[in-house]
Amino acid sequence: MSGNTFGTLFTVTTFGESHGPAIGCVVDGCPPGLELCEADIQLELDRRKPGTSRHVTQRQEPDTVEILSGVYQGKTTGTPIALLIRNQDQRSKDYGNITESFRPGHADFTYWNKYGIRDPRGGGRSSARLTAPVVGAAAIAKKWLKQKFGTEFKGGMTQLGDIAIPTESWAHTSANPFFAPTADQALIARLEDYMDALRKDGDSIGAKIDVVAQNVPVGLGEPIYDKLDAEIAYAMMGINAVKGVEIGAGFRCVAQKGSEHGDELTPEGFLTNNAGGILGGISTGQDITVSIAIKPTSSIRTPRRSVDKDGNPVMVETFGRHDPCVGIRATPIAEAMLALVLMDHVLRHRAQCGDVA
Amino acid sequence: MSGNTFGTLFTVTTFGESHGPAIGCVVDGCPPGLELCEADIQLELDRRKPGTSRHVTQRQEPDTVEILSGVYQGKTTGTPIALLIRNQDQRSKDYGNITESFRPGHADFTYWNKYGIRDPRGGGRSSARLTAPVVGAAAIAKKWLKQKFGTEFKGGMTQLGDIAIPTESWAHTSANPFFAPTADQALIARLEDYMDALRKDGDSIGAKIDVVAQNVPVGLGEPIYDKLDAEIAYAMMGINAVKGVEIGAGFRCVAQKGSEHGDELTPEGFLTNNAGGILGGISTGQDITVSIAIKPTSSIRTPRRSVDKDGNPVMVETFGRHDPCVGIRATPIAEAMLALVLMDHVLRHRAQCGDVA
Amino acid sequence: MSGNTFGTLFTVTTFGESHGPAIGCVVDGCPPGLELCEADIQLELDRRKPGTSRHVTQRQEPDTVEILSGVYQGKTTGTPIALLIRNQDQRSKDYGNITESFRPGHADFTYWNKYGIRDPRGGGRSSARLTAPVVGAAAIAKKWLKQKFGTEFKGGMTQLGDIAIPTESWAHTSANPFFAPTADQALIARLEDYMDALRKDGDSIGAKIDVVAQNVPVGLGEPIYDKLDAEIAYAMMGINAVKGVEIGAGFRCVAQKGSEHGDELTPEGFLTNNAGGILGGISTGQDITVSIAIKPTSSIRTPRRSVDKDGNPVMVETFGRHDPCVGIRATPIAEAMLALVLMDHVLRHRAQCGDVA
Amino acid sequence: MSGNTFGTLFTVTTFGESHGPAIGCVVDGCPPGLELCEADIQLELDRRKPGTSRHVTQRQEPDTVEILSGVYQGKTTGTPIALLIRNQDQRSKDYGNITESFRPGHADFTYWNKYGIRDPRGGGRSSARLTAPVVGAAAIAKKWLKQKFGTEFKGGMTQLGDIAIPTESWAHTSANPFFAPTADQALIARLEDYMDALRKDGDSIGAKIDVVAQNVPVGLGEPIYDKLDAEIAYAMMGINAVKGVEIGAGFRCVAQKGSEHGDELTPEGFLTNNAGGILGGISTGQDITVSIAIKPTSSIRTPRRSVDKDGNPVMVETFGRHDPCVGIRATPIAEAMLALVLMDHVLRHRAQCGDVA
Repeated sequence: MSGNTFGTLFTVTTFGESHGPAIGCVVDGCPPGLELCEADIQLELDRRKPGTSRHVTQRQEPDTVEILSGVYQGKTTGTPIALLIRNQDQRSKDYGNITESFRPGHADFTYWNKYGIRDPRGGGRSSARLTAPVVGAAAIAKKWLKQKFGTEFKGGMTQLGDIAIPTESWAHTSANPFFAPTADQALIARLEDYMDALRKDGDSIGAKIDVVAQNVPVGLGEPIYDKLDAEIAYAMMGINAVKGVEIGAGFRCVAQKGSEHGDELTPEGFLTNNAGGILGGISTGQDITVSIAIKPTSSIRTPRRSVDKDGNPVMVETFGRHDPCVGIRATPIAEAMLALVLMDHVLRHRAQCGDVA
Repeated sequence: MSGNTFGTLFTVTTFGESHGPAIGCVVDGCPPGLELCEADIQLELDRRKPGTSRHVTQRQEPDTVEILSGVYQGKTTGTPIALLIRNQDQRSKDYGNITESFRPGHADFTYWNKYGIRDPRGGGRSSARLTAPVVGAAAIAKKWLKQKFGTEFKGGMTQLGDIAIPTESWAHTSANPFFAPTADQALIARLEDYMDALRKDGDSIGAKIDVVAQNVPVGLGEPIYDKLDAEIAYAMMGINAVKGVEIGAGFRCVAQKGSEHGDELTPEGFLTNNAGGILGGISTGQDITVSIAIKPTSSIRTPRRSVDKDGNPVMVETFGRHDPCVGIRATPIAEAMLALVLMDHVLRHRAQCGDVA
Repeated sequence: MSGNTFGTLFTVTTFGESHGPAIGCVVDGCPPGLELCEADIQLELDRRKPGTSRHVTQRQEPDTVEILSGVYQGKTTGTPIALLIRNQDQRSKDYGNITESFRPGHADFTYWNKYGIRDPRGGGRSSARLTAPVVGAAAIAKKWLKQKFGTEFKGGMTQLGDIAIPTESWAHTSANPFFAPTADQALIARLEDYMDALRKDGDSIGAKIDVVAQNVPVGLGEPIYDKLDAEIAYAMMGINAVKGVEIGAGFRCVAQKGSEHGDELTPEGFLTNNAGGILGGISTGQDITVSIAIKPTSSIRTPRRSVDKDGNPVMVETFGRHDPCVGIRATPIAEAMLALVLMDHVLRHRAQCGDVA
Repeated sequence: MSGNTFGTLFTVTTFGESHGPAIGCVVDGCPPGLELCEADIQLELDRRKPGTSRHVTQRQEPDTVEILSGVYQGKTTGTPIALLIRNQDQRSKDYGNITESFRPGHADFTYWNKYGIRDPRGGGRSSARLTAPVVGAAAIAKKWLKQKFGTEFKGGMTQLGDIAIPTESWAHTSANPFFAPTADQALIARLEDYMDALRKDGDSIGAKIDVVAQNVPVGLGEPIYDKLDAEIAYAMMGINAVKGVEIGAGFRCVAQKGSEHGDELTPEGFLTNNAGGILGGISTGQDITVSIAIKPTSSIRTPRRSVDKDGNPVMVETFGRHDPCVGIRATPIAEAMLALVLMDHVLRHRAQCGDVA
């Protein structure tokens, strides 16, 4: 109940801190018989890892994963799958100046007040580095869902600061350093310039990310509290720096009339998808569409007013290596969270209602 | 795991359907020694109950609550508190025409596909009527939090369709039928006219609700998956008809720079509250501020295309009694969910870290 | 986490106190489509109810059950099933003398010390009366398991004080007031005489109960902590007054050699059942056999030394109406707990491994 | 819910197989601020490790533990504590003959039937080797409970086959290879001879273990399903090879009268302890006393009838290295399980009722 386990039937229990010896997780509840090797997991970890462009943190972590258990002769056995990633490029001295004071907008303040002790090296447990084990665990879920239902996860950045990015095709996201779903090179150049200027200023910026699950079976979700959308909201808001979550029409529904919002049905299927693939908390079989708002990184070089742990006023500047826009690397993380929610709900559905159609 | 229990340490397990004999809940984990009587709970139920103005459903339900257990000589004993509300004004015949077909935008379709059976009377389990037991349970949490920390919950409607409603004071919300936080009578009249026209049209409309928790202790929230904001998002997105959730700056953070978003600290406290009272998933002690988007009611008189359960095309009009804007009665529900989340996290904090400061 | 919910996927959340207005439970996770009516549940409640012979408490409770939710047109819908039983024959004045002092061997002392408040009327929440809702809930599980796998539950008293009762046939248990699995009328008469003498003495006595589940599917149980035998031990030790639990050979295995204890297998099946139907925490498909030790009732008329809540020495005699041997009515309760454990594990198995063979 | 996590608030999630690369666990919910280093944990692991006498398995495993997270500057931070133990002395070829057939009395049969796949090397996940991470986790709980309440855990073997071992003093258990609580050297010699003969015969034997928790706070345990004794029964029955559990008087209570069994109270405390320190599922503050029955090892050299995975009859003899009496090394394991249950219930008590007196 200390909040380090994600999921109820397909569970991921993570451990580790940004600058500790290792990070990792234990994945429990995986169906037996799935073919699985480290390369399956590495593939997803590589999409998230730091240091892949000048626009993200320059910390060099290969994030090489080792499977410690749960796989025998290349197949899952139904027992827990432990994943281990050794940290390699810690530079804890960069954090010397914030061990005693609190970065505005950062978890420094709250960890200190909650626990009376905190590991300040690289943000400790509150670091976005801890999304790596989750992305690893989700690689297992993605593989199983793909084989079972053909489910696929797509996503990308649809806004950076006040620059809107149109969603032309998810296929474009791997061709630029922003996971931008566009082939518009002028727009990509504009994003590059924006980020370069921002980095020079020692500032950071917010972003909006959209993710989609395709080929989702109908019937997933447990009303009335573990609704599929409620669990997605929980998963997404739990990602570092997220401040808003929308399903389907999201906040646009405020100004919609019922005659416009409600997706009409024909024998050929739904005519629209304002629902974002979920009605009454249960999947409709349409694409599940989610948007999230990601706040600007709190660790910036710009000096800001704060207090130290004794309550005295200080000015705080953060050195160390940071993503100036945490949104840039957020796409594989958001996909991972969505995959984990769906995987969990497939198992939950099977428990009460038998196998998923 | 079938999703009918809310919370982990202060749990609310609800039961009932819109037109069944009764609805209710079992509240478990309440600290012993709290003075509690039915009037404490009735007070909150009366804020939510139907039939209080012409703008909401005309179903007449007094929602009279009976405490069946857990209280001895006027005090909670630490054992489960069961709340029972008998349904009184069912008119199931009004639903005859939708027992075999699916309302666009409604859970009809998904319940049928998930369970292979559904209770169509008044929406069965998927009805917003099921928020009553939760509001009742939250009355207990509110009373305890008020006594222990002085915590208070406020909220109101801040947008109806495309009519924005400025938040002047939460005190105004009890003086109009919309929970609008304004004393602007011209604006209230405009809302009344809007709703009257809508009702005549047989249509429905979305709304935006803001809720705030004041006097919240610092340190609540369990990183890294049961973050306070993640749990609030789960609670809010789980309310019927909610499609979006924001904490603090919400989607505004997308266009914010770090130097603007991060709330500076002085020895006197935070200077701003873009965080919405939560950093790293843990409460800062500031007000917790939440916004939610509520979609328009799916049960409308306007005829719409749909299919029946055999997949044949039909036109669906909904009779029965419905709220043309479910957002109108949503304020006490959103307050209730926020109160339940905070109550749960106080107990979770005490478990690991000892009593809350 | 306050311990009032039994099970993980098929959950039973109970409420109520011995002398409160009502007792009951919410059953969540029941598969949809099961035919269910109140008579199905009443049948099992009647096997457990008080007042059926002179050897048990004379409190007159019809234990009439009302289904409040979760059933539509005679079938379960997959939503929570609430069961309500109104208390009718409370006589709280009989407990006047123990409101301030603690019965030796009773939960009076610990409830007071844990919660700082207790409902002393009839033992409050700690009363064995609270097994009624569980027996009701288990009736649903039994019906489903019977239909799905042909699973049946049998049990009876195999020892009363120092009188051993041979297990001739479970069919005999309904023909005598002790659930004794024997047709030996001389032995039954001896049990009657023993109980009559005990009642005259104002004393109480322990008993041993055996229960068996037949036609259990192979593969139920979740290693390595929610083993089927671990969960059975938890369920049985949680019944009021139980002090010991054995599976299969139980304590006899201490003196057994491996060459004797390990049940040999042939193509026709196992040759013996020292395992009690469980190996490595997973069901083998053999009968599951369980024995439990039930202590003598702590509420006796014999005066005993104790203290009051201020720590002063007192002599305690208990009036009120009590079972002189709580073991007599324990058979349907132990069957119920076993049924709930198996039901839960069928659902758990389905979640991870798909449908049960 | 796949059963690889022990506990609800102080949780231990284990992973690993007997012959995989590593075993370990993630401990979540540990209060912050506890001084902790690897030596604290190694101490308990060394009490359990194999190869320490000729009477136990000769597998050589140093069981060296590495703390991967959750500790900063020698103190726990409140974040998950991951423990890693690399396996070193696997000899999987010894198991060649049982990869296709099932040892009588072993989990081989049920794992195969449940999962359709199993890791046969050293018993895979079902091996008692998996008790090592739990013993490691419990070292943390023991340290915290000792500091907070002075709680201590003692235990030893009280019967080996049909040789009863009197409990003279727990201090003697470290002076002989059996954890026997006696200084009677003739008796120790008899145990040695018995084991030597057994080993020569290629057979195995059962044992009885008693464990005690001293200086336990009053008020631990959550009625009515997570009673302290129910949770202890669950914990103990979940240990490999356990077939019976008793609390306090255990099965002796069957023949006891209420006037004998109920422990009388005086202002100086309880006069007896038939309850084993638990009444109504809640600790009384007395010693908690538990006995467990451990079956003989199923892996024996004596040839036995069985079937292979296609159902054909085979004779099975087990080579590999095995404990001829798993009871010999069970004492630290049983202590560990008891410590974990108490730790968990301290946190649960704090959540609802505030700090423990």
